[in-house]
Parts: sequence; C-alpha cells; structure tokens
Amino acid sequence: MKTPQQIFELMYNNDPFSKLLGMKLIEITDGYCKLHMQVTEQMLNGFGIAHGGITYALADSALAFASNAKGIQSVSIETSINHLSKVALNDILTATTEEKNSTSRTALYFINITNQNHTVVAIFKGLVYRTGKEW
Amino acid sequence: MKTPQQIFELMYNNDPFSKLLGMKLIEITDGYCKLHMQVTEQMLNGFGIAHGGITYALADSALAFASNAKGIQSVSIETSINHLSKVALNDILTATTEEKNSTSRTALYFINITNQNHTVVAIFKGLVYRTGKEW
Amino acid sequence: MKTPQQIFELMYNNDPFSKLLGMKLIEITDGYCKLHMQVTEQMLNGFGIAHGGITYALADSALAFASNAKGIQSVSIETSINHLSKVALNDILTATTEEKNSTSRTALYFINITNQNHTVVAIFKGLVYRTGKEW
Amino acid sequence: MKTPQQIFELMYNNDPFSKLLGMKLIEITDGYCKLHMQVTEQMLNGFGIAHGGITYALADSALAFASNAKGIQSVSIETSINHLSKVALNDILTATTEEKNSTSRTALYFINITNQNHTVVAIFKGLVYRTGKEW
Repeated sequence: MKTPQQIFELMYNNDPFSKLLGMKLIEITDGYCKLHMQVTEQMLNGFGIAHGGITYALADSALAFASNAKGIQSVSIETSINHLSKVALNDILTATTEEKNSTSRTALYFINITNQNHTVVAIFKGLVYRTGKEW
Repeated sequence: MKTPQQIFELMYNNDPFSKLLGMKLIEITDGYCKLHMQVTEQMLNGFGIAHGGITYALADSALAFASNAKGIQSVSIETSINHLSKVALNDILTATTEEKNSTSRTALYFINITNQNHTVVAIFKGLVYRTGKEW
Repeated sequence: MKTPQQIFELMYNNDPFSKLLGMKLIEITDGYCKLHMQVTEQMLNGFGIAHGGITYALADSALAFASNAKGIQSVSIETSINHLSKVALNDILTATTEEKNSTSRTALYFINITNQNHTVVAIFKGLVYRTGKEW
Repeated sequence: MKTPQQIFELMYNNDPFSKLLGMKLIEITDGYCKLHMQVTEQMLNGFGIAHGGITYALADSALAFASNAKGIQSVSIETSINHLSKVALNDILTATTEEKNSTSRTALYFINITNQNHTVVAIFKGLVYRTGKEW
C-alpha cells in the first residue's frame, strides 16, 4: 500500500493545472493536506482581485490530495465555497483541510483558505465519493 | 447607464484569468450570460480529466458577467458546484446562466455547464451581493 | 418490483413527521414527486413567518419520495436551500422535484417550492446516495 | 440595546415551531447559541429515523438565535446540511453554533449537531443577511 506522500506525488506529477497555478505542498498525511500558492497577475479578475476560481482550485486540489491520501481513489461530487475577504495580487494563500466524516462510500472535508496575515479569505466544503479502487 | 455588452467588456478586458483559460463570450444580456472555452492539457488534474477548478472558474465568470450586466456591481458570496460527468481533454464547455431571483440586495443564479455533446457536466449555484455601486 | 405509488405509500404510512405537517401527495412517478401542504400557526417562527424548517421539511420529503420511487432505497447526504420569499400563515406550498442526474450510486434533484400565487419561495438542492437495497 | 438573552426571549416566545419540537436553550451570547431537543415518535420518517427536517430545524433555529443575538435583525438566505449519522427515536440532539464571519451585511455560521454520545450527526452551514433593523 502506498503512503500519503507517494499518492500525492503520483497525483501531483500528473496535475498540470495545480502546477500552472504554482501550488506547493506543505504537508500531507492520511486524510489531511496543507497546500500553498501565491497570487500572480494572471489570476486576477475584472475587479482587480483574485478570480473566484483561484481559491476554489486551491481548495479543490487540497480536497483531492487529502481524500486520496487514505489509499482509495476518491472523486469530488459536491463542493461549495464562501468568499469572505478579498484576495489581492501577491497574496500567499494556504489551504488546510479538516476531515469531518469518512466512511467506505463518502467523506466530508472542510477547508480553510488563509492569507499571509492569517485572515480567512474563503471557507470550502467538499464531499467526495470513494470509488473503492486502490492507489 | 452602460449596456450589458459595455459592462462585459470593461470586466473581461481586465480579467486575465478568464483570458488565460480562453473563455469566449457567446451572449450577454441583462442578467444572462453564455460563455464557452476548450479544455487544454494545462487544465487537467491527476486523474487525467479537467481539474474541478476549470468548470468552477467558467461558471464563476459567467455568474460575474450575468449578475453585473444589470448595471450594479455585484460580488459572489456563496457558490456550490456538482460535478456530474467527466470533462476530458479538448472538450468544449458552455456555461449558460439562469437567474432564479434578483433583489436590490442579492441575486441567485443557476448555471449549467455542458460539453459539445450537450451532456451536462456540472451544475453551479451562485449567490451574489449587490454592492449598490453603479458600473 | 414495486410501483412508485406503492413505494410512496410504504414510506408515507410510516412517516409521522410528514403527516404532522399535513403534507399531501399530488403526483408520484419514477424520479418525480409533487407534494403540497398548508402553513399553520404551529409552523411560524419568531418573525411571524414560516420557520425555515417548514419549507426544508417539505422539500426533503419530496426528495425522499422522488428518489426512492425509482425502486432503490436512497438516503439524503447533502442538501441546501435558498429562501427567496417570505412564507406566511395559511400559505399553500407546493414542492415539485426535477431530477438533474441519476447514477447507480448517487442522484441529484432540484426542488422548487412555490406558494398559491406561483411565487417561488424557496429553491432546494438535494443529493442522495443509492444504497443498492430494493424496496 | 437588548441583551442576547432578551432578544432570544422575544424570538422564542413567538416561535411556535421551535416550541412544538421541544427546543430548549442551553446558552446564548453575542453571535453564539447552544440548543437541544429530544427526538420523539412524531419526528420520524419512512425509514424509522428522524426526518431530515428535524436536524435542519434545530440548526436553523440556532442560526436565527445566534445571528440575531448581536442586536441586528438577521434573516437566513442560504443554508446547507450534511447528514452524517442516523438520528434515532429518543436521541437528544444538541446544536452548537460557530461564527465564521460577520460583517454589517452578512454573517456565516457553521453549526454542529451532536447526539447524547457526542457523535456528530449533522453539519450545517448558514449564511444570514443583516437587515440593519435593530431589535
């Protein structure tokens, strides 16, 4: 059976979008993941702040890494995000997962996205389906 | 007062992330928007399908354009997305908004994301806050 | 195999809460349900309007009946509701389901709640898990 | 200006649905509320467990009391709930709120629902709109 770190590497090495956005792993364990990335000019929207897809993508990657780190392939089925504070150019965002529930069929994660000042900029909720297929 | 098309252009011309992903406008009217984009290699995740952030970003841009087209600056406060079918390399995605509710304070939109075969690949729900500030 | 009507009766006859609230069936078919109920004094909250739990409960019952009518026992795993208009004493509420997706594992329903004036008072989204167990 | 306890009493004394379900206050402070109730036969659904509307109603009342306790009338605009464990007859449910964000316009609360064994049976997320009107 593969370790969380090995599963992360298998996933991340084949994940061009997470790489394009510059996501970097801080920590990965069974059911837990911490990622960070920096907001660049390419990530802004028409209001001059980070596009909502940026914080979402960071959280969605953290969800995928955390839930798959348990050894069973898991896919997102429903996610929601609340944008609480503006995300500006050059902000450094950190996504930290918290596993709220995990069964053989589904698992629920809450993910906090904070900036470099420890302000929570978004809160994400993600439900995954466990396919049953081992990594 | 600006037209929906003028507001769209003001927003889109300053929205590098929507451009980076290759989003193209099909139609914009008061409270309605239709956008499309094609999935490239850069948009894939560790399962070889489009990263969840891709369909989310397309829908989130459609939400922003549709809700702002009414002339008042509006910002997303809560969004959710259900991923229903896999999105593959080269798929052409179309986001079509439907306004469910609009008051002076908030508005609610549902957005369908379909692929080139008219399969619904994701359903998005977005709630915006109306700042009261005119475009 | 049982019909949607038979499954509904098995469920409803053992569902004291739906009966307590006075829910009545209008129509049940495979993956579809329409229910109504009237708002009584007991259902109000501290603002003198219907408690949010009333529209939620009506939609949640409609979700259960519609998703189980397909013959496989299905349980709700995630639901959300947007309250769009006030619900007053004596209002007659109708919940109408729309199946957005159905696989062997999960299904997604949107449910509109309208009042006697055809105003949409709430929109509900419900995701169910298919246990695989037949009715 | 009224205290959280005074606002709670004004709301609860005019809230027949919360009383019908037997909700009892454990604690109320500015932006925080803890409520409990016991599951009776009337609250069951067609699977012989508590109707989803029961945990939802408890959480929705806790949301209303916590968010209004800050002194400004606040109404729910979007809520979601994940049902994690079955709720049985006679279970004693406790809802505990956590304020995640609060501005002059909106506030976001997460609410845990636990049973008498401290098992989390449901997790609720609620977004309220601040009307600006004082209690």
